Amino acid sequence: MTLSKELAEIVGAEHCLTGTDIGARYAQDLWGSDRKGDPQLVVRPGGTAEVAAILRLCHERGVPVVPQGGMTGLVSGGVPGADEVVLSLERMNQVEELDRSTRTMTVQAGCTLAAVQDLAAEHDLMFPLDVAPRTAATIGGAIATNAGGLRVLLYGMMRELVLGLEVVLADGTIVNGLHKLVKNNAGHDLKQLFIGTEGTLGVVTRATLRLRPAPQCRFAAMCGVADLDAALDLLHRLQAALPGMVSAFEAVWDDAYEVLLPVRDEITLPLQKVHPIAVLIEVSGVDAGKDLDRLHRALDDCADIVGESTVAATAEQVGLLWQARERIPKQILQMQPLFGFDISLPAGLLDQYLSEVREELRGHWPAVKLLVFGHLGDGNVHIAVVTGEQTRDRKAVVEHIIYRAVRRHGGSISAEHGIGFEKRPYLHYSRTAEEIALMRLLKQTLDPRGILSPGRILDEASQ
Amino acid sequence: MTLSKELAEIVGAEHCLTGTDIGARYAQDLWGSDRKGDPQLVVRPGGTAEVAAILRLCHERGVPVVPQGGMTGLVSGGVPGADEVVLSLERMNQVEELDRSTRTMTVQAGCTLAAVQDLAAEHDLMFPLDVAPRTAATIGGAIATNAGGLRVLLYGMMRELVLGLEVVLADGTIVNGLHKLVKNNAGHDLKQLFIGTEGTLGVVTRATLRLRPAPQCRFAAMCGVADLDAALDLLHRLQAALPGMVSAFEAVWDDAYEVLLPVRDEITLPLQKVHPIAVLIEVSGVDAGKDLDRLHRALDDCADIVGESTVAATAEQVGLLWQARERIPKQILQMQPLFGFDISLPAGLLDQYLSEVREELRGHWPAVKLLVFGHLGDGNVHIAVVTGEQTRDRKAVVEHIIYRAVRRHGGSISAEHGIGFEKRPYLHYSRTAEEIALMRLLKQTLDPRGILSPGRILDEASQ
Repeated sequence: MTLSKELAEIVGAEHCLTGTDIGARYAQDLWGSDRKGDPQLVVRPGGTAEVAAILRLCHERGVPVVPQGGMTGLVSGGVPGADEVVLSLERMNQVEELDRSTRTMTVQAGCTLAAVQDLAAEHDLMFPLDVAPRTAATIGGAIATNAGGLRVLLYGMMRELVLGLEVVLADGTIVNGLHKLVKNNAGHDLKQLFIGTEGTLGVVTRATLRLRPAPQCRFAAMCGVADLDAALDLLHRLQAALPGMVSAFEAVWDDAYEVLLPVRDEITLPLQKVHPIAVLIEVSGVDAGKDLDRLHRALDDCADIVGESTVAATAEQVGLLWQARERIPKQILQMQPLFGFDISLPAGLLDQYLSEVREELRGHWPAVKLLVFGHLGDGNVHIAVVTGEQTRDRKAVVEHIIYRAVRRHGGSISAEHGIGFEKRPYLHYSRTAEEIALMRLLKQTLDPRGILSPGRILDEASQ
Repeated sequence: MTLSKELAEIVGAEHCLTGTDIGARYAQDLWGSDRKGDPQLVVRPGGTAEVAAILRLCHERGVPVVPQGGMTGLVSGGVPGADEVVLSLERMNQVEELDRSTRTMTVQAGCTLAAVQDLAAEHDLMFPLDVAPRTAATIGGAIATNAGGLRVLLYGMMRELVLGLEVVLADGTIVNGLHKLVKNNAGHDLKQLFIGTEGTLGVVTRATLRLRPAPQCRFAAMCGVADLDAALDLLHRLQAALPGMVSAFEAVWDDAYEVLLPVRDEITLPLQKVHPIAVLIEVSGVDAGKDLDRLHRALDDCADIVGESTVAATAEQVGLLWQARERIPKQILQMQPLFGFDISLPAGLLDQYLSEVREELRGHWPAVKLLVFGHLGDGNVHIAVVTGEQTRDRKAVVEHIIYRAVRRHGGSISAEHGIGFEKRPYLHYSRTAEEIALMRLLKQTLDPRGILSPGRILDEASQ
């Protein structure tokens, strides 16, 4: 019997797609690089037992499998390689339980981030992870990539928000670790193996998520400051004045801010002038009257370092500020060709890093533009390099310049997007040979036939 | 050449102890069970390279090794088994760097928790992990056991406070992952393998710790409440009123509170009456005047569920409350013989759990006492069962009753103390067969000769 027939027996014929039945969504990241796969076989299991049966079969046959969530990744991790069976979790999109007493939600991996956020909000709770493609991104994908986003500063990355996981191993073994406990030192915390390993060690099928009390009010402000030191000083002074309340601290450097000027009719431009750095601060509180006063006072106390500021006091105004912030990557993505990066550094080194990189890039392309924005509170910025023409040679030069400087300053070549295929050649810039050898050992141990997302993170040849 | 001579060549003769030169500190946990080892060989390396050389040698020879920190564990993990070489990290007790700009501290594994806390405080920063034996407990031990303690509620367990690790593997390979980054998705987050695995997968030699801004003021309160529901309601109302400020929420059930009565001359008894549950709340803030008012107002708003309360407004008063709280386990430990437990449950189930367990124990020993206290905010309590006589048979009966009920309610047999030797027979009460098989696979992969802390967490026979 052919593989597709056997897979169809597991999931039902209508959920085993071949040939022209396979839609474009299975071939490529929604907003990632232009790497495109040519999937020949897509299976859409309806539950964990079906995922296990699929993997058992593919393991026996030595057939490679790539799990897919919402395809909102940015490193082509979900883009199918040749001969890979696409394992789409899209049908496993149910919330199984919201437990108010433990403030947990147990969901299937294909559940979208927005669905989880919305259901939590209906119960006056909050699931704090937030990324722009929230309506498409899935919980399974967020776990596989240890997603970060806009509120890591106060609530942590996805790793901190998962209490329990159910995972199917490469050979089809189901490991049910759907615990609801905040503290559990009964042996290894096995979920840590699967969070952030991009589907290369197992397929996440269900998760128990940790919810937080919903803030009763949210305010925001945008401030223009003169340089990085002022921005970091502002962060630390606001965190000291408003402890536990600064839920986002996003920075936009001038060149990136300027992409908003041509669309000023469509958005509300927050500041009158273009400052060296514009900072978006979000504050989450419990007392709408008092907390707004506290934010105003805290900003007044920072008048010596803030050039211009605007405070968003209503939900609508807060929404407009976020709309402006989220418009930036959208505008930048239209400036193709560009080379995009997601790096982290000790935050205090960012200005030095950027000036070194800018100078080196200008040596190659005098008119090069560096558009920089991101999660300054976490030392994580996104950089778009616009050199004009986009060639393979040029890509290699830009990547070397960006990543060599990251290595020099002890940073990470991937703060939150992961490695996938795209950053694999540079993994050793942020990890030692011994660390990479240990990753390889784990991969060989958990997936001895190399069927799970082969070639992501680590190259296949030496797996 | 004998093993001891070769080890002496690595660390120097004065740091390789044999026979009667071996002090009592290497044989037994300071406050744990009465399991006692009979160490024949103790090595005290002065740095990572020496640790690597020791492990390389022991790996070649197939000699088992047990790393030791401050011996403040409670599950006999550091107690040497027969023929085990004791690898004491006591000489590796230096702080290597405090980096104010990244708010990190890089320390050797043998550095004490108190030393780290004190140095952070000198720089107006805080290392938030706190456990009673802070002057003896080491950072390496806290990492190996994923320590919890008094402030997990606001700051997380040790896992959340470690940014980078240097580890020596069983074969002597040094894996340097001393990163300072909050966000780093460049491949596997390997430190997770070693945090909480009790020295069975590698020896932690150095760590980069995450520091927090020091709170500018701390207040506390003790409240008597009528039952568990009231205690949890109080917690949630205080967290809502004082977001990001409730840094501890400790509960003491009546029988445990009563152990303070005989020593009321030595401590300040916080409450006039013995309530079903006494709760100690700690609040960390930034504005001494306003935050104390906020605490008073928040407590006033909870008058309907608080029977009696006292607020500690000065550092001295706060200290007295903590002194009373920390006196409880000390008094209980004097009530030998007793059987001690460290469990976690979904917090809302604790009362039902305790009444089921109490009833079952009374069936065996009508006069049994259950002394219960702990970190209610995390669903984690410590239970001391006093049955009178302490025999092996009786121990087995008590453990079965305590742990069967934990299993029934989906709890953990070890919230923060780990498994070690002591809880190994019950690991499967909190973990599935597939989870345990995966732990075994990791152990076999990282320590194929089984030389690192053999028999802890998993039994040796099947390793």
